[in-house]
Amino acid sequence: MKISLIGSGNLATNIGVALFNSGNKVVQVYSNTLSHATSLADKIGANAVDDIYNVSDEADLYIVALKDDVLENIIPSLCKNKSDKFFFHTAGSMPMDIFKGYAEHYGVLYPMQTFSKQRIVDFKVIPCFIEASDELAKSILENICSDISDRINELSTERRKYLHLAAVFACNFANHCYEISSEILNENGIPFDVMLPLIDETAKKVHDVKPKDAQTGPAVRYDENVISRQMQLLDGNPFNQEIYELMSKAIHCTAINKNSDL
Amino acid sequence: MKISLIGSGNLATNIGVALFNSGNKVVQVYSNTLSHATSLADKIGANAVDDIYNVSDEADLYIVALKDDVLENIIPSLCKNKSDKFFFHTAGSMPMDIFKGYAEHYGVLYPMQTFSKQRIVDFKVIPCFIEASDELAKSILENICSDISDRINELSTERRKYLHLAAVFACNFANHCYEISSEILNENGIPFDVMLPLIDETAKKVHDVKPKDAQTGPAVRYDENVISRQMQLLDGNPFNQEIYELMSKAIHCTAINKNSDL
Repeated sequence: MKISLIGSGNLATNIGVALFNSGNKVVQVYSNTLSHATSLADKIGANAVDDIYNVSDEADLYIVALKDDVLENIIPSLCKNKSDKFFFHTAGSMPMDIFKGYAEHYGVLYPMQTFSKQRIVDFKVIPCFIEASDELAKSILENICSDISDRINELSTERRKYLHLAAVFACNFANHCYEISSEILNENGIPFDVMLPLIDETAKKVHDVKPKDAQTGPAVRYDENVISRQMQLLDGNPFNQEIYELMSKAIHCTAINKNSDL
Repeated sequence: MKISLIGSGNLATNIGVALFNSGNKVVQVYSNTLSHATSLADKIGANAVDDIYNVSDEADLYIVALKDDVLENIIPSLCKNKSDKFFFHTAGSMPMDIFKGYAEHYGVLYPMQTFSKQRIVDFKVIPCFIEASDELAKSILENICSDISDRINELSTERRKYLHLAAVFACNFANHCYEISSEILNENGIPFDVMLPLIDETAKKVHDVKPKDAQTGPAVRYDENVISRQMQLLDGNPFNQEIYELMSKAIHCTAINKNSDL
């Protein structure tokens, strides 16, 4: 099957390379910035296009990896004269039915990972969550998806929303904790790389132990002396101080609830 | 040199095993719960003791790995009649000088890692931060420390406080983000292990990219539609909702400041 890739960002780049490496034929890459489209298209033997009306109808299926707001606006133009083709978007928070009325066969392919153009990750181990409008779209989606990932799961629009929310906590918010950590170290002339073994072990630990059982530190012990001293260290940064206070309370409450479960 | 280990918890267990494996002689393990002391002592060929007044003076140096409040209270009894020995504590937030007046030679050995008794980690790669009261204590501490770790740094009490604070964000608060993620998944019948490749990649990414440059997701894009929809999904949990709102704002502010730096 011939594939057209709508988008050339972090996710599009990673999915494009995974499709190419698994022997699939990507015929065209669209981006509204031609240089971005070309950059990805050149990597995977495709043509580049920067006008949505020039997206060819020669492909059998269209994978749409765009920002949520762009995605919604582009669908009518994209699907025009191609309503018999297959359309799949990759957005965690967007319903499958945004294609409804514009295409007959459609669905969602949501890979649970954080992507950067500069880091091509191993797609095989990424859990991919799929949803399809009908049996035909589902079988097409399963075929393509099993070429690039060993971990395919079906998930409805309703539950995918929560999966995406969970990912925001596990990835974006955890990363912001790293960011605050690096700010504090930076202000005190300590290189961030001293924190890497700790960050790695914290991530590794939850492979074997539930996060609430893995918790350590002053908040879970509710060591009020340490907590109040650390709050004072953050006096110059009310934002980080507020995060510190809220997270410490949350950790303490989780520990209390856990103990009352026993 | 003969070592006595005061404490048998997560850190004491890991440091005890690392000392034993590097050929050091641990003669005694103290815990106020004898079974805890015995459990660690048996692993590393030491004797167990549960009365602080029975901690032998046959050791040359005493490594004190106890909770902060216990540490402060136990020092007078521990150091009694041993004031010519070497004493080192392992607490990030406690000043070195808590030994002052009780011992002549003392210091701090603070390993930057999260420890569990059940998980013996590779101590060699752990950055260890040391501080000593005098040159003699420093050389003793450096010797012991270089047996177990390849990454030794000197750090004052004042800066160690900030290092500890940075670790609370990078480890405890990141882990609480995992915990909230697992709660959301659990409520929606999705197993937590679908999140592990994402958690791993988020941790791995900051080895190469600064956390603020690694950030992805709705908050850094300031995608208000996704943010307000995700806030609604958290309606039943005001605590997690507050964390979501605060973290999203913080990520957005960091992104704005970063762009204004360019």
